Amino acid sequence: MISETKLQKYKDWIFRSSAYSMALSIIGIDKLTVAPPGGSAYRDERTAFLAGELFSIQTEPEIFAILAEMKDDEDLDGDTRRAAYLYWKHIRDISCIPKDEFVAADVLMNKSYDAWLKAKNEKDYSIFEPYLKQVIDIRKKFYSYRNSDTDLYDQMLDDFEPGMNREKYDAFFAALRERLVPLIRRITEAEQIDDAFMYQNYDPSTQKKFTDHLLAYLHFDSEWGYQNETEHPFTSWTCENDCRTTTKYLADNLSSAMFSTIHEVGHATYEHDISPAYDGMILSEGVSSGMHESQSRLFENYLGRTEAFWTTLYPVLQEHFPEQLKDVSMEKFISAMNVSVPSLVRTEADELTYPLHIMVRYEIEKGLFDGTIAPEDLEETWNRKYKEYLGVDVPDASKGILQDVHWSDGSFGYFPTYALGSAFAAQFMHAMRKDMDVDAALREGRFDLCVSWLKDHIHKYGCRYDAEEILRMATGEGFNVNYYLDYLEEKYSALYHL
Amino acid sequence: MISETKLQKYKDWIFRSSAYSMALSIIGIDKLTVAPPGGSAYRDERTAFLAGELFSIQTEPEIFAILAEMKDDEDLDGDTRRAAYLYWKHIRDISCIPKDEFVAADVLMNKSYDAWLKAKNEKDYSIFEPYLKQVIDIRKKFYSYRNSDTDLYDQMLDDFEPGMNREKYDAFFAALRERLVPLIRRITEAEQIDDAFMYQNYDPSTQKKFTDHLLAYLHFDSEWGYQNETEHPFTSWTCENDCRTTTKYLADNLSSAMFSTIHEVGHATYEHDISPAYDGMILSEGVSSGMHESQSRLFENYLGRTEAFWTTLYPVLQEHFPEQLKDVSMEKFISAMNVSVPSLVRTEADELTYPLHIMVRYEIEKGLFDGTIAPEDLEETWNRKYKEYLGVDVPDASKGILQDVHWSDGSFGYFPTYALGSAFAAQFMHAMRKDMDVDAALREGRFDLCVSWLKDHIHKYGCRYDAEEILRMATGEGFNVNYYLDYLEEKYSALYHL
Repeated sequence: MISETKLQKYKDWIFRSSAYSMALSIIGIDKLTVAPPGGSAYRDERTAFLAGELFSIQTEPEIFAILAEMKDDEDLDGDTRRAAYLYWKHIRDISCIPKDEFVAADVLMNKSYDAWLKAKNEKDYSIFEPYLKQVIDIRKKFYSYRNSDTDLYDQMLDDFEPGMNREKYDAFFAALRERLVPLIRRITEAEQIDDAFMYQNYDPSTQKKFTDHLLAYLHFDSEWGYQNETEHPFTSWTCENDCRTTTKYLADNLSSAMFSTIHEVGHATYEHDISPAYDGMILSEGVSSGMHESQSRLFENYLGRTEAFWTTLYPVLQEHFPEQLKDVSMEKFISAMNVSVPSLVRTEADELTYPLHIMVRYEIEKGLFDGTIAPEDLEETWNRKYKEYLGVDVPDASKGILQDVHWSDGSFGYFPTYALGSAFAAQFMHAMRKDMDVDAALREGRFDLCVSWLKDHIHKYGCRYDAEEILRMATGEGFNVNYYLDYLEEKYSALYHL
Repeated sequence: MISETKLQKYKDWIFRSSAYSMALSIIGIDKLTVAPPGGSAYRDERTAFLAGELFSIQTEPEIFAILAEMKDDEDLDGDTRRAAYLYWKHIRDISCIPKDEFVAADVLMNKSYDAWLKAKNEKDYSIFEPYLKQVIDIRKKFYSYRNSDTDLYDQMLDDFEPGMNREKYDAFFAALRERLVPLIRRITEAEQIDDAFMYQNYDPSTQKKFTDHLLAYLHFDSEWGYQNETEHPFTSWTCENDCRTTTKYLADNLSSAMFSTIHEVGHATYEHDISPAYDGMILSEGVSSGMHESQSRLFENYLGRTEAFWTTLYPVLQEHFPEQLKDVSMEKFISAMNVSVPSLVRTEADELTYPLHIMVRYEIEKGLFDGTIAPEDLEETWNRKYKEYLGVDVPDASKGILQDVHWSDGSFGYFPTYALGSAFAAQFMHAMRKDMDVDAALREGRFDLCVSWLKDHIHKYGCRYDAEEILRMATGEGFNVNYYLDYLEEKYSALYHL
């Protein structure tokens, strides 16, 4: 049994780490939402210093030894052992990086983000390219310190989704391709749904007022949540009772802000619902990127795009936009928000063509790290693949290669989890529908009943179990892609009368 | 001459300190603007820990010794010697406090702020009282560690305004009382100005749109500044190019948000205009509370309430509120925004009765620390003094004893600087008007010319010189209260045709 002294050091270490993590989280939210850009250089340099302080705390050799002891100590309870293991694994992977390089990387990532934002605004990939190259180089270097025999990109994939690698993703995307590509083709040839009314003038300040209703409907409570606006919507959090989301209002698009709101609140609810006993420690995080995305996309698509979800909400939306929506029936509204048309921007893509956007990114990332694609060829490769897979011509880099923030800080291996999460969500929904009448609950405005199911079966565990274990406990079987494909085929065949 | 090694340690220490200061500043802004209240306990505990880390850095004995050497080192340039002296003085005053007590105080101040906000919302002083008592006790204890022979409240006054004490403030307020009380009485008996139109329904979202124009007019640039909304408007900053302000919109009051905006931008502009060479170090701060307030009140009153200031702005305001302002002439508008009527809330008080609000607070603070007023008698004392000095009955604590945030973190000695700053501003304006045609500049919308004068004569110096020295350099003489009293007499005699 580990000594009391060591346990106390471990607890103290968690607290100290969590203080710096919190500071960095808040500084990060501030930077992305409201901080004046002129102060970036000053702030970033100091933020990197603080990240270095956290790095020093996290990699204290004495703690690494304590964690190694704790993770195998059978006398400790399961929660503590699991936390010790996850901490130990994380520290093993970062402590090989020299601190000065770690801090320099933090400075670079901040500069790279600023360059990405500028490049996107000016629709000019060449502004971002030199930073992206440096980011790629630094990621390669950091992984090289681990001295692992595993393929570089496989390591990246595993970091975001433990247990996944190229082989599994290749099989996953092949399954998607096999059944979705013909489906998408049949829809292209079917009679199209008129959704022009979604793209009229929708005053952003009225959209905001409706969003307040929507947030209340989703039980996103101002006591523990706050929504702001950013160019690229995201969710961030510091603890159980502090989860932040952002959205973006477009004056000529009704659905963009609504669905990004529902999506981000899915992430935030997951974090909020994790057992408060884990607050401040490593167990208090969604277990993987795919699992996180399963919750956001479950909110957004599997619940948020159903007629039942809108039963009590749509009349409120009509009140906010009487002129635009007075002649739009509920049925027409629901059809319009589920229209499937190959498009340019991932975050605004429909549910069916969405995984193709991910496939483009997955293939590019694979190529970047096996050396078959060079950073200078990225824009051309991107545009070619969008033409090939989605049949669309990219008009400029802001709607193409620069649309996503992820690569600016080197989050390679993240994108594939978006498609995987969508598939997890289908499997969870299948289980939820066996346990409760989801549509009846939603029709009565009881979104909270769905949240309760998710909390009891998924959210509360945080990182306590692996994604695969949670899938088994919640649905009674391991991951099965067919729930996803069946769902899409059934839904879209009905919608387009195929 | 101090060694290069020591100088490098000093520079490194400044950088480390500035990183923590920045983090605490951003965490503080976040707390006051958007952070979900449910997360307060979690955040505050960790914020206090980080404040403790900063405390440890600031009070490193080796640095204190280096600073002591530097401040008297004639071989160093004046900027460096001055900075070393100010750091040394600050550390001398805090290093006597035990670190655990310092951290505990930080936790208490955060709780006290939350209690104040709750008490204000519920109009119930008893919620705040127990916290205020603890805050008073802790301030007394911390000052006792200094072992100074100087009277306790005199030390507090000196901390906010170096060189000031009760004797000087007593004389200052006596001079105000002597000339202002008769003036206010004459106005009460004069024909009153109709300003009812200022209190119609003014939609906050339209007020916000006008504020965007106002901020642009004031040259508050989004590259270095950001305005948010809070219950109690304030200004905060992390560096030259990162200054934040807040305001508060009232649906039935046109002037409140406008003038709080102009006021806070005065503070922000001061910070922004300090020489960038001082960024991140102690010279990069307004030199005293009184000097800071002189700039905010100069913006708000001496410029912001003149007809010249509104020449190009008022037509824009009328466009935003055509229904409410179509029959209101510029003359009537200017008179209305300068109406003097004894009132309840300091931040919304007119220029003339404003110092009486300060006098109430000054007398109460004096009483609190010489033992003649107990915390449990504060509300009754407050209400009695408001009746006596301003002739108004306080309807509830939110408009009385709980209206200001300052005491919640123990900022005793701060309030008197508000009146002093107003008087400094009069003296600065007198000098500015000798150098340039202020009204002509404003009539052409050239607010920037006024800002340039202030930058050259005041702002750029930061803490490089004492307030008294800056007054002398900018105006050619030491502080003279008569500029303030002459200004008020002249302005209000004309306005009320006395």
